[in-house]
Amino acid sequence: MKVLPSIKSPRDLRLIKKELLPTLCEELRKQIIQTASHNGGHLGSSLGAVEIITALHYVFNTPEDKIVFDTGHQAYAHKLLTGRQKEFDKIRTKGGISGFPKRYESEYDTFGVGHASTAISAALGMAIARDQQKSHDKVIAVVGAGCMTGGMAYEAMQNAGLLRSDLLVILNDNQMFISQRVGALGKALTKLLTTKYVQLAEEKATNFLKRFDELGNNAAKLAKRARSILFPGTLFEEMGFRYFGPVNGNDINALIDVLEDVKNVKGPVILHVVTKKGKGYKPAEDSPTKFHGIGLFDVETGDSLSKSDCISFTKAFSNALLKLAEKDEKINAITAAMPEGTGLDAFRDKYPSRYFDVGIAEEHAATFAAGLAAGGLKPIVALYSTFAQRCFDQMLHDVALQKLPVVFALDRAGVVGEDGPTHHGVFDLSFLREIPQLIVAAPADENELQHLLKTAFDANAPFVLRYPRGAGFNVKMDGELHTLPIGKGHWLKKGKDVTILAIGNRVHPALQAAKLLREQGIEAAVANMRFVKPLDTALIDEALNNSPYLVTVEDNALAGGFGSAVAEYLADKQVSHKLLRLGYPDEFVEHAKSSQLYGAFGLDAEHISKKILTWMK
Amino acid sequence: MKVLPSIKSPRDLRLIKKELLPTLCEELRKQIIQTASHNGGHLGSSLGAVEIITALHYVFNTPEDKIVFDTGHQAYAHKLLTGRQKEFDKIRTKGGISGFPKRYESEYDTFGVGHASTAISAALGMAIARDQQKSHDKVIAVVGAGCMTGGMAYEAMQNAGLLRSDLLVILNDNQMFISQRVGALGKALTKLLTTKYVQLAEEKATNFLKRFDELGNNAAKLAKRARSILFPGTLFEEMGFRYFGPVNGNDINALIDVLEDVKNVKGPVILHVVTKKGKGYKPAEDSPTKFHGIGLFDVETGDSLSKSDCISFTKAFSNALLKLAEKDEKINAITAAMPEGTGLDAFRDKYPSRYFDVGIAEEHAATFAAGLAAGGLKPIVALYSTFAQRCFDQMLHDVALQKLPVVFALDRAGVVGEDGPTHHGVFDLSFLREIPQLIVAAPADENELQHLLKTAFDANAPFVLRYPRGAGFNVKMDGELHTLPIGKGHWLKKGKDVTILAIGNRVHPALQAAKLLREQGIEAAVANMRFVKPLDTALIDEALNNSPYLVTVEDNALAGGFGSAVAEYLADKQVSHKLLRLGYPDEFVEHAKSSQLYGAFGLDAEHISKKILTWMK
Repeated sequence: MKVLPSIKSPRDLRLIKKELLPTLCEELRKQIIQTASHNGGHLGSSLGAVEIITALHYVFNTPEDKIVFDTGHQAYAHKLLTGRQKEFDKIRTKGGISGFPKRYESEYDTFGVGHASTAISAALGMAIARDQQKSHDKVIAVVGAGCMTGGMAYEAMQNAGLLRSDLLVILNDNQMFISQRVGALGKALTKLLTTKYVQLAEEKATNFLKRFDELGNNAAKLAKRARSILFPGTLFEEMGFRYFGPVNGNDINALIDVLEDVKNVKGPVILHVVTKKGKGYKPAEDSPTKFHGIGLFDVETGDSLSKSDCISFTKAFSNALLKLAEKDEKINAITAAMPEGTGLDAFRDKYPSRYFDVGIAEEHAATFAAGLAAGGLKPIVALYSTFAQRCFDQMLHDVALQKLPVVFALDRAGVVGEDGPTHHGVFDLSFLREIPQLIVAAPADENELQHLLKTAFDANAPFVLRYPRGAGFNVKMDGELHTLPIGKGHWLKKGKDVTILAIGNRVHPALQAAKLLREQGIEAAVANMRFVKPLDTALIDEALNNSPYLVTVEDNALAGGFGSAVAEYLADKQVSHKLLRLGYPDEFVEHAKSSQLYGAFGLDAEHISKKILTWMK
Repeated sequence: MKVLPSIKSPRDLRLIKKELLPTLCEELRKQIIQTASHNGGHLGSSLGAVEIITALHYVFNTPEDKIVFDTGHQAYAHKLLTGRQKEFDKIRTKGGISGFPKRYESEYDTFGVGHASTAISAALGMAIARDQQKSHDKVIAVVGAGCMTGGMAYEAMQNAGLLRSDLLVILNDNQMFISQRVGALGKALTKLLTTKYVQLAEEKATNFLKRFDELGNNAAKLAKRARSILFPGTLFEEMGFRYFGPVNGNDINALIDVLEDVKNVKGPVILHVVTKKGKGYKPAEDSPTKFHGIGLFDVETGDSLSKSDCISFTKAFSNALLKLAEKDEKINAITAAMPEGTGLDAFRDKYPSRYFDVGIAEEHAATFAAGLAAGGLKPIVALYSTFAQRCFDQMLHDVALQKLPVVFALDRAGVVGEDGPTHHGVFDLSFLREIPQLIVAAPADENELQHLLKTAFDANAPFVLRYPRGAGFNVKMDGELHTLPIGKGHWLKKGKDVTILAIGNRVHPALQAAKLLREQGIEAAVANMRFVKPLDTALIDEALNNSPYLVTVEDNALAGGFGSAVAEYLADKQVSHKLLRLGYPDEFVEHAKSSQLYGAFGLDAEHISKKILTWMK
């Protein structure tokens, strides 16, 4: 490393000779690969965006000029160039810096992100704020092409096209779109890349435009429109943006030249930049999906180091869905750009005509599924819990209100570990529990997950299944799937002193906790509640007959969650009882390993037993 | 009426001579105006869409062919033509038919609606279901131009453009867009309407296209693109749709001809139809906004009959915002196509440069506001509570997580009356209460609303203010606004037997109920809690010192709502108590007058007192 260490801030960067920038980019890549191999993270996007980020900080006067990242998967080089080299090796670890831009971390992180498609909205807000305050800084949104599939991005572009405030959108097109064939926009971008029109020389263009004169007074209008023939990007131009590109986004000098050019163009501008995901690291270039978000890996080979002997919840879901889909051709599966993460890739490969990746478009995913159900099919929508927040209204208004049999499989519910507060799925039990006519279940382990999936399809009703990220509990997987009774929990262990009512992935730790409590002379009963809605009130009544001491344990926020449902029931029942609710308090949970978070919030076996012990004394 | 009464179903309609259709449309209009004058409702849109609906049922083989309405404001003629003439005079009344399409009401109502921008998603789902089941019925989505501003519509079009299933989208353009200048799409549509290109004769077009030959082998591609010069609609074509139009949508015979033409066009098709909102009823044509959703009115004059002596919550909000904005130029106001409904119209007229109507785009509205706040301004987002469900994730992820000082003013919280389950705002306290770092307040009356609005801006934190539709409580309005302590309720009345903890618009009825209880010998204390979050736990402690009997009253779902927060606190506090929670049970609340709903769910003074009386015995 010879250049990077001397850059304490973008001000240093802007003093560097242009010729050294390729070396700097190489050093940034090396550092990013090194650190990601230890800490995991979003490697592919960050490698692809090294030149974009370097060029932006070189050309623009950050932090006065404001860069707003979309989703934030691509921002590692940004962290390294903005005074966080020392902290970089602790990225994504407990107490370390975040894997995403975060306002409280740096003045260069102008807007915190994690969920997709927010950057143009936020940047437009900043641009308007700048205009009103008669300031002159630039606002630049860096948006992945995938994020442009989200409806929010379209809403923002529409609004920007109307308001005409100066705003530069860098469309970072890593061509994943093309391979994945997501949406009409993907097709449009492909067209932009494959079109030969951009190669027409300027003089040819001029000659061409002259022809329109023959059409008389409509010529001006026609000429304007014809511009889009020669300079494609019609979709964006129709939205009120000026379109420039495509440009090679991994060529730092080309990028700087273009940015100097578009820097002072007025109004909303879109610059289409083409990059390679995983650029500069062959394993990541060859397997962009694997290296999108990755755990620990060997730098030499690219082999993953974080292997588990247990089947994951995701894998159990994936397998069970295949089994069920084989017997029922009405089953269709929908995801919003997360085929691998949700395990739908296996279904996609086996049943391509019944599989739909709608892009980063959770709202449409839910209502499209409602339409499939209204048409007589059996749709399942597989999302991450945190992104299901995006289709809360559609789940309520389009699915539950109409009692349409749509199954939602919410992966990565509860804490997700290193991705932190933007990605923890700790709110779903709370926001789903209030929706009438919806069934909400959470399996204790990977085996129960497969049975609950069958139960969900058999229920013929709006049904949510939520389960955590990562490895299961290494339980025996039944070969045959069976339907479980809806709204019924079951007893795992009897005990006279206290009853632990556990839900989802906290059931096994609760059972462990009961063993630890026995060592302390306390006999705890444990129930696996399975359903948050309908709540098994008969089981709770039994528990009350056993002991007035009840404990709820959940991998969800305490406000409005499972324990809240139990508290409501007990309040309404008006019997004497003592209730201890374990879950996440009323704060955003920071990033750390999930195991660390369970410990910190009293949700692993050891802490559950300790909390109960203290409470009962 | 000579034609309408003989039409028991669309099958009858399809037997009618084409020449009689204009007469039928006239009769439909007369009936719609007559009934709306008694029952209120969405008059303007329904009048504008009479010909579209009649033509669709005439040309297509409903209900095998499926019409999916977007939002459903326009569907009255549809109800009249599909066997609901007898029930029509009870539309929107308790026990009568819904003002919106509803699956459980008729097989012709293929998909229930209320919220905007869902129709293309749902219709696409039905089209795919049809294809998979090898059926051949047609699917038609009828979408207002306003609904096309919603990101969901774009997500759906993208997906439809890719899937290429046969799908007809009727873009019902009532030109409101143009007058209101909402979004780039509005501009694009304006361009379509004002362009002269469509008038070029076919031969001219052919000649024109020949010129491209000179360019050699690129000609075919260029020609395809040039098509959009002559036949505009590029935006839609880029999304993968074939565009036809614009057509006069109030000319029944022209419409039928065009529909016969496009009926068998393969793949996704968009037909741009131009209609007049309020068509055929002069007062509605002249005041489209007033007649969009209207209460009772005099048919002769168009004068509104439902006048109130009280200032509404909306008006109190509108006035208070003007007062505050005058003193603080950082205040900016954003709405998602509801300027009149939220009372922002006054702000818009006075401070146009600080006012933003982003179209039906709640997601963008929230994050755009977050951007304004990040840029140093003081934004307020005014929405209806039910539509805030659309930006739940943005409120959580973009506003609360970053502690950005955005104020959300949620009008029409609680039950809204005749619009029914799609529009009741009875979930907001539940889905907002779980969001960390968010302040959630609900004023007891229109006077408290203005003070809480000042409080919200002064708080410099994420802040939600939710209040009901309609008239206030006729309380004295203070001239001076002052800041109230955050998270603090206050005592309205002391009483030793029981404490009523009331929130929002249930505070005054609770106070009334206490008077009725006194007549029965029970002394009830009453507190106005003001804040659901932070909850005034000190006040609850005081209440417990007073009496173990606590009652919560709220205009919200019981699951996860205000009473749930109190139940959680009491459970955690582990003191002996009795709690009665009054609110909406775990079901969707049907349409009826709000006063009828308060009665039915035990939330007016009389029923509150009765419920408490029964409970205490």
